[in-house]
Amino acid sequence: MATEQLTIDRAKSAERIGRDIETLAGPDYTLSDEAIRRYAYTHVYRNTLDYFIRELEALDFEVYEDPVGTLVARNRPAGEKVFGVGSHCDSNRNGGRYDGTMGVVTALEVCRLNRELELGLPLKLISFLEEEGSGFGQMLLGSRIVAQRVDEEELRESFRAVDDGRPFWEHAEEAGYEPGRWREAIHILDDLYGWIELHIEQARVLQDTANRIGIVNAIAGYVHADVTIHGRSDHAGATPMDFRLDAGLVAAECMLELERLAREAGGGTVGTVGEIELKPGLINAVPGEARFSLDIRGVDEDGFRSVARDIAAFAERVAGERGMTAEYAQRQALPSARLDGRIVGALETAAEASGESYMTMHSGAAHDTMSIADRVPSAMVFVPCKDGISHSPEEDANPADAALGAEIMLNAIRMLS
Amino acid sequence: MATEQLTIDRAKSAERIGRDIETLAGPDYTLSDEAIRRYAYTHVYRNTLDYFIRELEALDFEVYEDPVGTLVARNRPAGEKVFGVGSHCDSNRNGGRYDGTMGVVTALEVCRLNRELELGLPLKLISFLEEEGSGFGQMLLGSRIVAQRVDEEELRESFRAVDDGRPFWEHAEEAGYEPGRWREAIHILDDLYGWIELHIEQARVLQDTANRIGIVNAIAGYVHADVTIHGRSDHAGATPMDFRLDAGLVAAECMLELERLAREAGGGTVGTVGEIELKPGLINAVPGEARFSLDIRGVDEDGFRSVARDIAAFAERVAGERGMTAEYAQRQALPSARLDGRIVGALETAAEASGESYMTMHSGAAHDTMSIADRVPSAMVFVPCKDGISHSPEEDANPADAALGAEIMLNAIRMLS
Repeated sequence: MATEQLTIDRAKSAERIGRDIETLAGPDYTLSDEAIRRYAYTHVYRNTLDYFIRELEALDFEVYEDPVGTLVARNRPAGEKVFGVGSHCDSNRNGGRYDGTMGVVTALEVCRLNRELELGLPLKLISFLEEEGSGFGQMLLGSRIVAQRVDEEELRESFRAVDDGRPFWEHAEEAGYEPGRWREAIHILDDLYGWIELHIEQARVLQDTANRIGIVNAIAGYVHADVTIHGRSDHAGATPMDFRLDAGLVAAECMLELERLAREAGGGTVGTVGEIELKPGLINAVPGEARFSLDIRGVDEDGFRSVARDIAAFAERVAGERGMTAEYAQRQALPSARLDGRIVGALETAAEASGESYMTMHSGAAHDTMSIADRVPSAMVFVPCKDGISHSPEEDANPADAALGAEIMLNAIRMLS
Repeated sequence: MATEQLTIDRAKSAERIGRDIETLAGPDYTLSDEAIRRYAYTHVYRNTLDYFIRELEALDFEVYEDPVGTLVARNRPAGEKVFGVGSHCDSNRNGGRYDGTMGVVTALEVCRLNRELELGLPLKLISFLEEEGSGFGQMLLGSRIVAQRVDEEELRESFRAVDDGRPFWEHAEEAGYEPGRWREAIHILDDLYGWIELHIEQARVLQDTANRIGIVNAIAGYVHADVTIHGRSDHAGATPMDFRLDAGLVAAECMLELERLAREAGGGTVGTVGEIELKPGLINAVPGEARFSLDIRGVDEDGFRSVARDIAAFAERVAGERGMTAEYAQRQALPSARLDGRIVGALETAAEASGESYMTMHSGAAHDTMSIADRVPSAMVFVPCKDGISHSPEEDANPADAALGAEIMLNAIRMLS
């Protein structure tokens, strides 16, 4: 185990990372002129994988793809233990240059530095297929296939292309893959003794606290749900206040209560009403129905699930007090993931040694690392993105921060090897 | 002045009113199979006017139309004073049988009874063009033209057909009218010494208080406005509660404050948020912008206008406290209309004499009577509609209540003549 901390030529790494990012924002790599639009089985996604394959083969990595298209590259023969680095290189439909791609590019830079500095670290780079769900409406799809968190019926039937409605399975076959062998994808994880994913933060915490690096020790789980309030629509002019069953007012009470509950739960628990729909939705009609969405997340599993239960109960109680009814319907839930203490510790030590500002934090957003963290000791590194903007062509991040991230990852992997 | 109260054959009147309503719900009188859909210059609207013209001519009324199509009929030679009765016979696009039409039909019944009972009352029936705005998006259009509450540019240019976007003016000419003479329409009011409009209530107050008749002594004015809160959109998972500028929460506070302010103002003041729009409107995004509508009404002019001012100030203050900004933009405002005490008194006396349940109330909804009440002593009579449902094919009302209304109107007009 190497203990002395390396300092890399950060400017040179930043330049290489910046060049990779720039290249992959070019017209061969996006379907849109105005945003990065890149998802599974498009020719621009193929071009992106080919770019990484060329770069990795130049470093003497052995490259292959799993049965549906997750890219894997290793610098050691099969059977030897390796340390995993990577992320995803697909984008949101109206995406930016950094979400996902910066993580794969930085992993590539780690591989380059390993060779340049003759560190001899055993590495495996992974670029998971289809994290954003832009192609098939399924987030974390590639890493969930690797982790076997899907079933065959979903792949054959229910997961369908946003563009043409045909099944994932057909598209995978047409792209030359063998989805029938999807269960073999899990073996990608067999030889990993650790995993680090670098990603842009997608929020403003690092920027607003003036930290260049975030060491991620947990990824929040979440509940996505809808609450529908059933009241009665009436003429807004002709109906006195005491004669109303205004569903919108129950929604308003719930929005404020959700804020209160999330703050009370603490520990980074968050709750958001991002969608609300009033019916009939006319200026001169008392809302007879109100539907609003709930997005509740936290790393404390009990904490965020309690908030979800409490807001459902609150909606029912307040609706009842006002003579209405409330319905709660869960869309989806994902448990939180605690990351590996040893890897987090090594990253903290390396960050400390870098002399740059960093903090330990959790991730509120979901990442591929969630899919594999219960099978492989894992952690993540965040770098700031400007004003927290993500999933937008406005997305902006600094290659110099990613270069610092590469140095910290390298040093952490050295400590763990 | 006749003081003894007449009792009409209410069953017979109810039957005639019911038959008129039934006829005017037939396929010749509506553009839709599933609702009453009838608006200015359609053939079904023409058929409806022709129906009333035939019935009125059979009663020896002289019938004409104003320069844009408001129907006028009188049983006295020009120059003699007459008492006005009527309403409108256009409908909402997805309307019912009663809104407006029941008022014209009941006015027709008043004319029939006047002749049958040889009362000799000098009467003028008016059916105002285009009250609902279904044809040209302008509420109270016919009565506003009569009252000269429009200008020529609006009629020539800005008021355009919902169906084809062409100006009101062109449509009026194509229908055989002379919109160039619109200013002459005001003379319809010259010989009126009073005006009573019967209408369905469009709310639940009469039903819920078990009253068959409402005597309307005022019509609420209103403010229609929008408030837009400018916050900041962030990732709902990655952004801690303390880092947010959630515009939706300010909207929620305003919705509840509006309810409180309207209740506090009392005197029948009402406030409604019927529309709300969050941007970007995604389950996993903190709302960066929230727009909501305000519909604030009351008969106490200061009362409802204070509520509008107070909610605008509240939005600004609460947005400011949360680090955001609020913008208030008025769409439209209409002053409230006090109705004529003498006519209201006569209607109350007649309602009392009928032996049936009634109440004096204000109208929260706008009606053609608002357009003319400052020029002609006016009042209104409300009859219940089932569950307050209006502007819907589900609209339901009882011809027996309208017949009672006809008796009360007749007796009131006798007292006033």
